[in-house]
Amino acid sequence: MEPTGTAPPGPGPNGATAPSNPEEAAELARALRRHLPESAVITTEEELRPWECDGLSAYRQLPMLVVIPETEEQVRAVLAACHARAMPVVARGAGTSLSGGALPLERGVVLSLARFNRILEIDADNRCARVQPGVRNLAVSEAAAPHGLFYAPDPSSQIACTIGGNVAENAGGVHCLKYGLTVHNVTGLRVLTMEGEELELGGKGPDGPGLDLLALMHGSEGMLGLVMEATVRLTPKPERVQVMLAAFDDVEAAGAAVAAVIAAGIIPAGLEMMDNPAIRAAEDFVHAGYPTDAAAILLCELDGTNREVSEEVARVRAILREAGATEVRTADTPEQAATFWSGRKAAFPATGRLAPDYYCIDGTIPRKHLGEVLLRIGEICRDQGLSAANVFHAGDGNLHPLVLYDANREGDLERAEAAGRAILELCVARGGTVTGEHGVGVEKLDAMCSQFGAAELERFYAVKAAFDPAGLLNPGKAVPTLTRCAEHGGLHVHEGELPFPDIPRF
Amino acid sequence: MEPTGTAPPGPGPNGATAPSNPEEAAELARALRRHLPESAVITTEEELRPWECDGLSAYRQLPMLVVIPETEEQVRAVLAACHARAMPVVARGAGTSLSGGALPLERGVVLSLARFNRILEIDADNRCARVQPGVRNLAVSEAAAPHGLFYAPDPSSQIACTIGGNVAENAGGVHCLKYGLTVHNVTGLRVLTMEGEELELGGKGPDGPGLDLLALMHGSEGMLGLVMEATVRLTPKPERVQVMLAAFDDVEAAGAAVAAVIAAGIIPAGLEMMDNPAIRAAEDFVHAGYPTDAAAILLCELDGTNREVSEEVARVRAILREAGATEVRTADTPEQAATFWSGRKAAFPATGRLAPDYYCIDGTIPRKHLGEVLLRIGEICRDQGLSAANVFHAGDGNLHPLVLYDANREGDLERAEAAGRAILELCVARGGTVTGEHGVGVEKLDAMCSQFGAAELERFYAVKAAFDPAGLLNPGKAVPTLTRCAEHGGLHVHEGELPFPDIPRF
Repeated sequence: MEPTGTAPPGPGPNGATAPSNPEEAAELARALRRHLPESAVITTEEELRPWECDGLSAYRQLPMLVVIPETEEQVRAVLAACHARAMPVVARGAGTSLSGGALPLERGVVLSLARFNRILEIDADNRCARVQPGVRNLAVSEAAAPHGLFYAPDPSSQIACTIGGNVAENAGGVHCLKYGLTVHNVTGLRVLTMEGEELELGGKGPDGPGLDLLALMHGSEGMLGLVMEATVRLTPKPERVQVMLAAFDDVEAAGAAVAAVIAAGIIPAGLEMMDNPAIRAAEDFVHAGYPTDAAAILLCELDGTNREVSEEVARVRAILREAGATEVRTADTPEQAATFWSGRKAAFPATGRLAPDYYCIDGTIPRKHLGEVLLRIGEICRDQGLSAANVFHAGDGNLHPLVLYDANREGDLERAEAAGRAILELCVARGGTVTGEHGVGVEKLDAMCSQFGAAELERFYAVKAAFDPAGLLNPGKAVPTLTRCAEHGGLHVHEGELPFPDIPRF
Repeated sequence: MEPTGTAPPGPGPNGATAPSNPEEAAELARALRRHLPESAVITTEEELRPWECDGLSAYRQLPMLVVIPETEEQVRAVLAACHARAMPVVARGAGTSLSGGALPLERGVVLSLARFNRILEIDADNRCARVQPGVRNLAVSEAAAPHGLFYAPDPSSQIACTIGGNVAENAGGVHCLKYGLTVHNVTGLRVLTMEGEELELGGKGPDGPGLDLLALMHGSEGMLGLVMEATVRLTPKPERVQVMLAAFDDVEAAGAAVAAVIAAGIIPAGLEMMDNPAIRAAEDFVHAGYPTDAAAILLCELDGTNREVSEEVARVRAILREAGATEVRTADTPEQAATFWSGRKAAFPATGRLAPDYYCIDGTIPRKHLGEVLLRIGEICRDQGLSAANVFHAGDGNLHPLVLYDANREGDLERAEAAGRAILELCVARGGTVTGEHGVGVEKLDAMCSQFGAAELERFYAVKAAFDPAGLLNPGKAVPTLTRCAEHGGLHVHEGELPFPDIPRF
């Protein structure tokens, strides 16, 4: 581990922080090459370098080796070889995780599922598709398009990110307000456990009997099993899509407008908010015609039939006006709608021009606290001598403050991380959670200590052990150890004794 | 155990089939009365009799005793006393389960949560309510009504059934097609484990970090923990509701019409189907004005704004005509809509007049197989010398064949159960599942052997053990033992050895 951040993964089980050993690496590579082609087993530092981080590049770690199998038999061989050697395995899709979910381990194998990129079936009658885990999110919608269907969850990385990774992180996106998260759009999974067992969870129908292991796989960050096949729900493309842009003089009014739209029983396909720093950055970058003097803008996408959308546009316009919008625009053409969205979509790279670095936070809060929490986020950042831009999924209360800093300035990263922790603690205090859609990964292990107590953490460990008793799948991610939480101060430790000492840790 | 059916729960762990012992019962009653009032601990056969079954009355078993605590402290005391004595505990809400989920055990305590019937909070701003587990399903909607909100999942027992039971069985209902099952409408649970640990899972916000234990609780049939509080999502009441009735000359055409409505991207609030025997029974019973010569009718409820509903009614009418409907009626008044629904709502009791007894099956299939599966159901019943009526949630492919029989006729119950098993096996063979919304309980343990193999069952056992290592919460329900599946013929047994003999059974 050589994290450049200040919150490295805590001491993990089964050597999540164990040192690598060149002889062991060489022996394992030889063993794997009995099952995989030479080129599918990567061992040299130069070739390993691109795998050292995922989308959360503040954390970097060269893996012991990387394997890129292309058949399920090869995957099984890798798992068996690693299991026999008690070698941790980190599964990886496109590596776009923003929380370090696919961060390698020094003594650990990265198992890439990139070559499992086939769409196995588009079943238009049952409105579903069967896909391999390495299929890109957007590729599903592209394949479904001739049938007038699409795959609804749309993380901003959807050009690159894969369905397997979407399941692992329970990915969201702009359209999840109306169409649900990944867990609401996957009806079946075929999973391999670390011990090579195959689990068939769900299918093409709704619901499933017995314990809901299908839902449990979502957001499990590759710690329970490897997704080998997913059956995903396809949604009919709406007849019409209309985008509105509303400007507000103050952030609290914009927050109240969001609550008012939802309270009116309207569920927009997307309802996004940007604050002034984000608006100006985006406008400088893509010239979307945003009102740069507004304290906040809302982008509201409505979809449905022609008549339905016309009616909702009128209702939303009235609600936004009532809530104090200084200006409400409606895109008249698809081109104009695309322009409205262009600034939102470019907001992250655009914000990158405001400061050398930014730290993207991901928390949720009940909608009614939006205005107050945005003001507090500004204060928290100012207390650290930093500033923030806000671009987020307002409709479902999923915040994405971008804390601006300069990694080359002494102490700035630490200050940004301190601000991030304070923001997530604020989310929890307001009844929200520490992640909306980016997952926990390594980034939010401390935040998990704010969210959960020992009783919940112990159940996490026990469920993990139910799938992976040896603790070899992506150890050290998603669930902090009790020791770590005790150090973080989030757990009550009685006279130095951790609660429930008899349950195996991982 | 003295089940009157032919498929009694298999040999359960921890004495799921252990005999009762009067001395043990008396000692436990004394211990419990130290914490609960005399009247809250029921011990006499006469008073125990009403608790001997739930909604699946073919299975009956007197419990050792029943406790009706009214404070959480009392619940904890009951759990502690039972845990200390390795005494199984069966939690019970209103006892409306149709799968025997709350069937008592001879050596076991029934823990009624009926007195936890308070609505703790209606939070209209965040569109949610916090309720105790014994709150009736319909009471939530009644309390939310002044805010223009309702609780969407609506099992047909909604006047009586409770939220705790709804979570335990992941209950559905007519409106679940549009609004989702219980799991999609609960955002937080506070749970007590058998060991008295308290788990806080989720809250008022969407999603939650870490493993999705919140979803896991849904459908877990009281085997993982006791729900002590639920935060449920409230949905805005639609401005307008319109109900349509379409008649068809043959069942397959009606099935195809269902698929066509859904394929058009319309998601009705409800889309129900009844076949001729069900139509005639309902019509005799409530005089809803149903076309008694139709092979099948569809009832389609559309909701939304005025304009949206008008538009959808027109579209659905065209689709139904196109699909071969011989008649399409639209209710002009709320009274007429209520009349349309009256037959559907009375269909179960009405069917009770066709034969002395009926056995209600609950399976799901991908929608496109509706027509074929309905024909096969008729054949399966005829093969047993029986007939069936069908009344079901067509929109989500959730079938409810009612197999008609006469319990007083030698062998009839066995034939009905054989037909039920064959129907569920057909559902699985068509890519569906063995339960849509009624749960597994004791009824569908054998069907689970058709649905799952040893690998999935072992994970169920391990997850169960992660929450309830002593296996005391509702043992013998929901998940069959490997031995039972081996006997049922659903599992491959190699040379008499069950797979994975090293994992603890329960």
